[in-house]
Amino acid sequence: MALIEDLRAAVGAAQVLTGTDMARHARDWLGKYQGAPVAVVRPGSTAEVAACVRVAAAHGVPVVPVGGNTGLVGGTMTTGGVMVSLERMNRIRAVKCDARLVVAEAGVILSRLHDAAEAEGLYFPLWFGARGSAMLGGVLSTNAGGSNVLRYGSTRGLCLGLEVVLADGRVLDLMGELHKDNSGYDLKQMFIGAEGTLGIITAAVMKLVPLPRAHATATLAARSVPDALVLLNRMQEATGGRVEAFEFMPRSYSERLREARPDLGLAFDHMPEVTILIEAATTVPAEAEPDATGEVPLVALLERVLAGMLEEGLVTDAVIARSEQQRRAMWARREAAAELCLGLGPIVDTDVCLPLDRVEAFLVQVLARLEALDPGARSLTVAHLGDGNLHFTVFPTGDDAVLKDRVLELVEDAVEELGGSFSAEHGVGLSKLPSMARRKDPVALEVMRAVKRALDPEGRMNPGKVIPA
Amino acid sequence: MALIEDLRAAVGAAQVLTGTDMARHARDWLGKYQGAPVAVVRPGSTAEVAACVRVAAAHGVPVVPVGGNTGLVGGTMTTGGVMVSLERMNRIRAVKCDARLVVAEAGVILSRLHDAAEAEGLYFPLWFGARGSAMLGGVLSTNAGGSNVLRYGSTRGLCLGLEVVLADGRVLDLMGELHKDNSGYDLKQMFIGAEGTLGIITAAVMKLVPLPRAHATATLAARSVPDALVLLNRMQEATGGRVEAFEFMPRSYSERLREARPDLGLAFDHMPEVTILIEAATTVPAEAEPDATGEVPLVALLERVLAGMLEEGLVTDAVIARSEQQRRAMWARREAAAELCLGLGPIVDTDVCLPLDRVEAFLVQVLARLEALDPGARSLTVAHLGDGNLHFTVFPTGDDAVLKDRVLELVEDAVEELGGSFSAEHGVGLSKLPSMARRKDPVALEVMRAVKRALDPEGRMNPGKVIPA
Repeated sequence: MALIEDLRAAVGAAQVLTGTDMARHARDWLGKYQGAPVAVVRPGSTAEVAACVRVAAAHGVPVVPVGGNTGLVGGTMTTGGVMVSLERMNRIRAVKCDARLVVAEAGVILSRLHDAAEAEGLYFPLWFGARGSAMLGGVLSTNAGGSNVLRYGSTRGLCLGLEVVLADGRVLDLMGELHKDNSGYDLKQMFIGAEGTLGIITAAVMKLVPLPRAHATATLAARSVPDALVLLNRMQEATGGRVEAFEFMPRSYSERLREARPDLGLAFDHMPEVTILIEAATTVPAEAEPDATGEVPLVALLERVLAGMLEEGLVTDAVIARSEQQRRAMWARREAAAELCLGLGPIVDTDVCLPLDRVEAFLVQVLARLEALDPGARSLTVAHLGDGNLHFTVFPTGDDAVLKDRVLELVEDAVEELGGSFSAEHGVGLSKLPSMARRKDPVALEVMRAVKRALDPEGRMNPGKVIPA
Repeated sequence: MALIEDLRAAVGAAQVLTGTDMARHARDWLGKYQGAPVAVVRPGSTAEVAACVRVAAAHGVPVVPVGGNTGLVGGTMTTGGVMVSLERMNRIRAVKCDARLVVAEAGVILSRLHDAAEAEGLYFPLWFGARGSAMLGGVLSTNAGGSNVLRYGSTRGLCLGLEVVLADGRVLDLMGELHKDNSGYDLKQMFIGAEGTLGIITAAVMKLVPLPRAHATATLAARSVPDALVLLNRMQEATGGRVEAFEFMPRSYSERLREARPDLGLAFDHMPEVTILIEAATTVPAEAEPDATGEVPLVALLERVLAGMLEEGLVTDAVIARSEQQRRAMWARREAAAELCLGLGPIVDTDVCLPLDRVEAFLVQVLARLEALDPGARSLTVAHLGDGNLHFTVFPTGDDAVLKDRVLELVEDAVEELGGSFSAEHGVGLSKLPSMARRKDPVALEVMRAVKRALDPEGRMNPGKVIPA
């Protein structure tokens, strides 16, 4: 086949996978999507990515980039396209300590960025469960969020520069390292969150921040979400914005955790309505170094705020992490979320964002409506509450498409009524195309199509994703 | 004239200015540019802006938005186009305290946003000299920076949602209020910093932050920029990133200040090589409330850091603001910058950004080269040093275009050699078109043109700006 021969000429025969060798890339890790690429190519440089894209263009074949394959929305699936795996583009080109930035290729796994930064006393503040396999190109392409967005922003806000291979194989070099650069349109913004539909991200310049000297981490029980949010506000005021994570696990989550991962334990003997994991962090020596009593001042501060809330009845129980081991145990219970969804049968997963003061109303409404629609359905919620970002997952009683779609509509109706978004941090891919068609402003969809046509006139860059037909 | 009649029908006869009534809008405030619009229209609503754009489209006439007319790059000049002044779209639609955001129209003056936020105990953290006249639509269209970017980011990072009238009069509603919303391409990013070339921004949702409870402000003298930068790093470490401004004024600036604004005084009796204005701020009660000795802890911290640097000889003199009046006096000397440039004859102004550790090298190189090129030329530098953003202004000995262009090239050569950008925070407009043509990556220019064609196929939205022909 001429296409395969040309790809082999572009990257070397060993880096063109076909047949069963493609199995690992062709299927998403949750097993929800099964693609059928014509080949998986593994270029080792930006020039090789460009060469592959030109070969695909010459043959009129779609091009679909893939990184760590940890996506949740089917964003890398293709039938008949060439998959470009960035996994060999895994060089960290530079860590610049004074400028607090890292220059890295798209195939660098997040945890390697964490390690490289930490070795220099710095921190790469993008943090979520899949950090051991997710790659830089993928988190940029989906504008990934995670647990620390509250403090440091989403991927978009961490990106200073970008290198992109365009649909015709031209290389767009936007690898600036400056904090102010208004030299024309800020083109990198178009490719961040575009899921490979406008070009393939091959490298980026990402901000680093000072490595925290101390964390203050606690798990606490509350009766309601509004009660819990009082804690967020008080800690933000007391620390001047040093809260890094504020994660919410309702009773249904704790029950499922006990059922599926009894080895991880639970924070409390009882089963509270609301469990919160809060973490603050500081880079200030005076806040991080133990005082005369041996207490870390930031931890003592969290303790005082929690004590006040316990007294007022806003918090009903609380445990403070006294060691890194205890801190890790608290996070393990939160990061088991993805696993907890496995093995519960048919699934409708959502990734919604709400104004913080509407989260409680959302949960009440959606659970009542779900009970009316499908009485036996289970649900599982876990949330980056500090951002208003909920992963509300439903396990309906049947696997038929009509029921699943009605469940999805039910959730999204409630989100829309409360001023939220149906898509927060996982991307659109294939899974949210119907939602885009139903919920997104029609003018916005028209403008997206115009941008897509301008940058990818032949419609070969990850076709069929993000923008509904 | 049919065009004028149609515009009158769209917004009412009283809001269509022609002839001498347009003088205020047709000329930029520095008097560098003189336009000749066919009319200035003053729509009072988004629907009226859309109507004006449709009228202009029907007549095939360009459309150029204008706000406070405080721009520095000729971005609102037009000969033969319709100017759309947003000044009557000056409603603050909502200040949402819990969500910490403001919903405002494009014609709202920045200082009104400051006041509206402060009334609710919040702060709108975009701050620069022209805040009394610059309007929201203009700061978004230029992605304006200013003195607090170090702490809060540029305009782009403060924007949550946007409303835009497109080239054909459609209204694009992106007025989201969420911190996570990945529902397709983040289209608002395209219009921020596009200077009206892709559409007219009519309203926005902007983030607010907690109002600082206390400031610690000082003016200090140092021998060199690298010495001064040690202070920035030490204060950032000691406070965990609470430095809001770090402004640099070299000896030439102080000399010009004494000459042009003797009423403002100088911080020191002598004339130091490097004068720095540093300001930190805190929202934490424990850092803001005077202790037993009557000292504000944040101010005491700045004092201790400065004392250490005086002892080491890194700082040669320092004054701490002991009252709001003293603080304002320090800022008045910094914010006189624009005025100080007036009356010095022909001018070549620049707005460049450099990596922080290259600022000293830039100044040394560029002054030496300028001395060689045009020995009698004066220069005036003022800088948001914390961002690496320098306003380096040259007053050449002659007014001929060739000399001025050589001066500009000299500055931009040095910027390019040191990894900087020729455009930091003022925008491109007309003034930086030659620099865009000479310095910007050709592929990036091609992509900008493709985006422009996609959104404005007839090329009628602020034509001839930002992207060189």
